[in-house]
Amino acid sequence: MTNQAPIPVIVNGAAGKMGREVIKAVAQAPDLNLVGAIDHSLEHQDKDAGELAGLSEPLEVPISNQLEPMLGYVAGDRQSPPGVIVDFTHPDSVYDNIRSAIAYGIRPVIGTTGLSPEQIQDLADFADKASTGCLIIPNFSIGMVLLQQAAIAASKYFDHVEIIELHHNQKADAPSGTAIQTAQLLGELGKTFNPALVEETEKLPGARGSIADEGIRIHSVRLPGLIAHQEVIFGAAGQIYTLRHDTSDRACYMPGVLLAIRKILALKSLVYGLEKIL
Amino acid sequence: MTNQAPIPVIVNGAAGKMGREVIKAVAQAPDLNLVGAIDHSLEHQDKDAGELAGLSEPLEVPISNQLEPMLGYVAGDRQSPPGVIVDFTHPDSVYDNIRSAIAYGIRPVIGTTGLSPEQIQDLADFADKASTGCLIIPNFSIGMVLLQQAAIAASKYFDHVEIIELHHNQKADAPSGTAIQTAQLLGELGKTFNPALVEETEKLPGARGSIADEGIRIHSVRLPGLIAHQEVIFGAAGQIYTLRHDTSDRACYMPGVLLAIRKILALKSLVYGLEKIL
Amino acid sequence: MTNQAPIPVIVNGAAGKMGREVIKAVAQAPDLNLVGAIDHSLEHQDKDAGELAGLSEPLEVPISNQLEPMLGYVAGDRQSPPGVIVDFTHPDSVYDNIRSAIAYGIRPVIGTTGLSPEQIQDLADFADKASTGCLIIPNFSIGMVLLQQAAIAASKYFDHVEIIELHHNQKADAPSGTAIQTAQLLGELGKTFNPALVEETEKLPGARGSIADEGIRIHSVRLPGLIAHQEVIFGAAGQIYTLRHDTSDRACYMPGVLLAIRKILALKSLVYGLEKIL
Amino acid sequence: MTNQAPIPVIVNGAAGKMGREVIKAVAQAPDLNLVGAIDHSLEHQDKDAGELAGLSEPLEVPISNQLEPMLGYVAGDRQSPPGVIVDFTHPDSVYDNIRSAIAYGIRPVIGTTGLSPEQIQDLADFADKASTGCLIIPNFSIGMVLLQQAAIAASKYFDHVEIIELHHNQKADAPSGTAIQTAQLLGELGKTFNPALVEETEKLPGARGSIADEGIRIHSVRLPGLIAHQEVIFGAAGQIYTLRHDTSDRACYMPGVLLAIRKILALKSLVYGLEKIL
Repeated sequence: MTNQAPIPVIVNGAAGKMGREVIKAVAQAPDLNLVGAIDHSLEHQDKDAGELAGLSEPLEVPISNQLEPMLGYVAGDRQSPPGVIVDFTHPDSVYDNIRSAIAYGIRPVIGTTGLSPEQIQDLADFADKASTGCLIIPNFSIGMVLLQQAAIAASKYFDHVEIIELHHNQKADAPSGTAIQTAQLLGELGKTFNPALVEETEKLPGARGSIADEGIRIHSVRLPGLIAHQEVIFGAAGQIYTLRHDTSDRACYMPGVLLAIRKILALKSLVYGLEKIL
Repeated sequence: MTNQAPIPVIVNGAAGKMGREVIKAVAQAPDLNLVGAIDHSLEHQDKDAGELAGLSEPLEVPISNQLEPMLGYVAGDRQSPPGVIVDFTHPDSVYDNIRSAIAYGIRPVIGTTGLSPEQIQDLADFADKASTGCLIIPNFSIGMVLLQQAAIAASKYFDHVEIIELHHNQKADAPSGTAIQTAQLLGELGKTFNPALVEETEKLPGARGSIADEGIRIHSVRLPGLIAHQEVIFGAAGQIYTLRHDTSDRACYMPGVLLAIRKILALKSLVYGLEKIL
Repeated sequence: MTNQAPIPVIVNGAAGKMGREVIKAVAQAPDLNLVGAIDHSLEHQDKDAGELAGLSEPLEVPISNQLEPMLGYVAGDRQSPPGVIVDFTHPDSVYDNIRSAIAYGIRPVIGTTGLSPEQIQDLADFADKASTGCLIIPNFSIGMVLLQQAAIAASKYFDHVEIIELHHNQKADAPSGTAIQTAQLLGELGKTFNPALVEETEKLPGARGSIADEGIRIHSVRLPGLIAHQEVIFGAAGQIYTLRHDTSDRACYMPGVLLAIRKILALKSLVYGLEKIL
Repeated sequence: MTNQAPIPVIVNGAAGKMGREVIKAVAQAPDLNLVGAIDHSLEHQDKDAGELAGLSEPLEVPISNQLEPMLGYVAGDRQSPPGVIVDFTHPDSVYDNIRSAIAYGIRPVIGTTGLSPEQIQDLADFADKASTGCLIIPNFSIGMVLLQQAAIAASKYFDHVEIIELHHNQKADAPSGTAIQTAQLLGELGKTFNPALVEETEKLPGARGSIADEGIRIHSVRLPGLIAHQEVIFGAAGQIYTLRHDTSDRACYMPGVLLAIRKILALKSLVYGLEKIL
């Protein structure tokens, strides 16, 4: 990062919980420069992005609801490295946001979920033609990706694994999407887990949890006081190997966001998933 | 224990896994004296109880399959405190064993399960008439009883609780009897746990575990490498309180067995459950 | 609580982090009525207490820096049950605050630390003469008190125990005050823990942690991402019994604060410690 | 493994705890054939290896204390794949054992510790000249190697890490060798961990544990009821990532031993560490 001009960064969805967190993280990174903050809501127009994000000093970047002029403004600044836009907006708008950004040569780092497989394929084609990097990252938690990679490595040697995920009791769905994803990743290895030694009986239905891919069990605990936790437990004769990730604050996603901003400049096409750039 | 003659102890079921463990524990307790070792199997007759139990030196107590003569022999020794018999035998024989012991004035400490409620009532009447202590202890683990008592204390102040029990994958039933018992103990307090904040959806059936007494959830994990573990997790806004018990060896039951042997001499009737003498 | 007039509550230290949390909790309790909010700082004078606390609607209670008039106002309202004042202020002012409250017949619930033993004795005498309840509560966490009581119960049967406490890396002191307190409570039972089986060698100094009361070891972990956690681990042959408390938010203290407000009306003297009113 | 003749295996140190476990594991593997069992102690000579290991049926392999004749016998059988010898003996004899095995073309899998760096270098030269595989494996636990590899991967992204290792209280040394090794592996990555945010004070000396390589803290817990456990805890803003390995039985080393036996036939030189063949 020596002697390099800082990367210009626009945050789209600036007034949302993730957007505010990204503003703080970018403002504190010496190699990044927050140049724009977009939010579609009228409530926060023209407020200072730094104050909105809870920083002690203003950043002199006003919240705007005009995406295209901002893209044009950043694209026009030939002195800088090309700009990056971080998008935590809404499934309805993210596709158009990405197309606009690529059209202006601004690299999109996308945390917004809800893109269809067709939309993703279409964006990949568009990014290819433009030779422009584009990152779609459903989960910015480096810790969770490390856990999943460690679980994949372990599942080569362990035939038995169960997952416990624990969340606050305001979460309606069970199992959590991330736990299901962990099971899918292990299931893709082409082996069946948890061959039964005995015929199991549930004296109370549901006791043995849910069965996800390839025989992997997932148990979902919901309690107030919990935040977001996942535990992958491998067992073999005489040993247990446990991987656990605990999330207590959105701040945990920021190292992944900053990594994506820094890595995208070297990309020439669409890349899906944080694990691809670790 | 000063200047007191040691308590004479008979072990019934001496060749079983628990019986051998009890022989070792009694042999090492200075205030107890192993005077007899009974086992119905013919395979081990006349072997030395100490050698069978894996002690480095013989105890000069041969394994016998004759219960009544042994009861008579111990009952006849007027110099001693009255004898105690520890029974880890079989559901089919335990009722008769207890009646015989009480008839001879020998106090039974019973670890054998499978007595019916009617049998227990009948034995209670019989012990009452004889003014003789009799202890029926389904679980000799002091740690587990402490966990259950701490859970009862906590459930007065916490409205949300789930149980995870984890056992080796040779265990066929789920949930474990002890986890069901913990839920029953909490359920008896007359409150309903885990009032829902949101309408829950199981994307994979069974994810949220089983529902035991009064809304308490139990999740059962089965993996090789696990032994026997129970975790009771209480949650409230901003906090989690967890009680966990891990069993790794039958030795964990011996403090409970020794406590029962020492406490039974002061009893005049049948008492059920280790928690009553803690 | 049926048909009972709500208890009038004053919060002193209303603009502090705990004060704001107490305002929220009192506002949401149907049997309590926030009647006053005091803070010595001039910054928040006359702001609405509800808005300061982050409630969506104002409470029509302005922040004031005048304690005595507020005490007089509440004391003068003969229709109500006597008022309660919750004090999360400063070691320098708390003693005078309590004396003033008792003089007006207002019951003090004190979360402020730093009172000397002499001050506490003096306040106890004063409360006695006035036949007025006064609660000094160094730790309002019901979960932690339950853990400590469960640990005391367990230490009667276990001779071996170590404590691990884990906090964020902004905490300068180690071990935490609460972990030291847990060790003290166990130490008061008059037994020595952790008799050594072998002569231990530290290949790296400090590996075996610190030694608190009666041989109890405390290990302190400091990492970003941790909040406040304590684990008490009891061990015996073949078993481990673990008690763990995790704090993730100040909200966890509110059930203890509300309990204290409700229980103090029945007290006639000074009581120290949440465990006394559980 | 189809149509392949089984690999002939000799176990040296057959009467030791690990040796007996290896005999059981080899006897149960269809692609391996136990052909010899060596033990220097006279106590078990000529006993059947299967009975000594606790198998229900004899293996028709008598324990012998003659290594060289056994090596010659296996080397002479040209029909088989070359033989493998598994050595769990003693630091005093292991060097000579390995030289003899290589001289006969028998591949040594070594679990015995205590070889000096010079001895290992010398054996490496000898194996090279003979183009014969030789595996020295200080820790056969695949789970622990996976944990250490996952920890290395995580330490690239986390700057804060502490280790807790927990063992039974008959272990005299602290920290455990494996925990020290984990810290060394992380330390070799060339970064300094745990930069301090605040000036830490130990109110009780040792509270913050020991400092191993590059600022990594290790805490050692010793309690009866524990077996062998290691926990590596990574922390960053808003998240904790924990890796834990629990050992409860020597059986946990057998998958590593069997893997080594199967992999050594493809090797032409000395390889050190299980991680090299995973």
